[in-house]
Amino acid sequence: MNEGVEWAAHVCVLLHWLQEEQAAPAPVPVARLAEAYELPAPYLVKQVQALTRAGITESVPGKNGGVRLARPADRITLMDVVAAIEGPDDAFACTEIRQRGMNQERPATEFAKPCGIAHAMRGAELAWRRELAATSILDLAAATPRNVANDARRHFARAT
Amino acid sequence: MNEGVEWAAHVCVLLHWLQEEQAAPAPVPVARLAEAYELPAPYLVKQVQALTRAGITESVPGKNGGVRLARPADRITLMDVVAAIEGPDDAFACTEIRQRGMNQERPATEFAKPCGIAHAMRGAELAWRRELAATSILDLAAATPRNVANDARRHFARAT
Repeated sequence: MNEGVEWAAHVCVLLHWLQEEQAAPAPVPVARLAEAYELPAPYLVKQVQALTRAGITESVPGKNGGVRLARPADRITLMDVVAAIEGPDDAFACTEIRQRGMNQERPATEFAKPCGIAHAMRGAELAWRRELAATSILDLAAATPRNVANDARRHFARAT
Repeated sequence: MNEGVEWAAHVCVLLHWLQEEQAAPAPVPVARLAEAYELPAPYLVKQVQALTRAGITESVPGKNGGVRLARPADRITLMDVVAAIEGPDDAFACTEIRQRGMNQERPATEFAKPCGIAHAMRGAELAWRRELAATSILDLAAATPRNVANDARRHFARAT
């Protein structure tokens, strides 16, 4: 899995911490988000762009621009973040090898039902997705000790 | 995910079909397994070697050599096959970016508990593994129409 998943999830939690006490969330420059976790800024920009394309963050242009969460943290799941970075496809891609070689003369109707292997892989994928969809960015933020969130807010309140 | 997972799972089901009515299972040349599903033999050899390293298949050398299942199909799970091909690692690798940058001065004790993000990703991985471990090669073989198994046996009974 792309290391950007870890980065993007932390960025969402951090943006929530910075925004949760603001009536009108101020956008945060991605360069400052990168510095906060010592991440390479050009690569983090790509991950944040993926979050924005997925409607998780929104980009504010201009001198005081940056990014902020596009919706409340309890409406962003870890599944949303993983799908934004990794794409929507299942990890397992069935290529229907069962229809080839010794089975190529069989009528197509025999393959109308999904292959048992693909069916089982799909079931496991759905179990994985259900788990990730059950955890929100708010859950993750709430599970972090309060002083970590407070220190992050103090860190970002300082001028660069 | 490596396409070898689909290949390896089908090979295990096929070996079960070929062996289930044999008192002493005859080894099957990997080249014939490759031909049965039109797979590139040199690449399938690599996947079958991975199955053998994992103790799922065993290799019989010599003129009439080949591979066969190393244990009964009800004792080989889809998880075993996936782990043999993909390796044992979780899809998500936490790199502890939470300890860097703005948090690098924090005492190590603050990071003794796993990060909430890594914890949630691990939970999803375990849900995925549980599902794959609940399906055996025997389950997959039993879910396939009987005539497909019979035709496969007839195909392999013919001389090459």
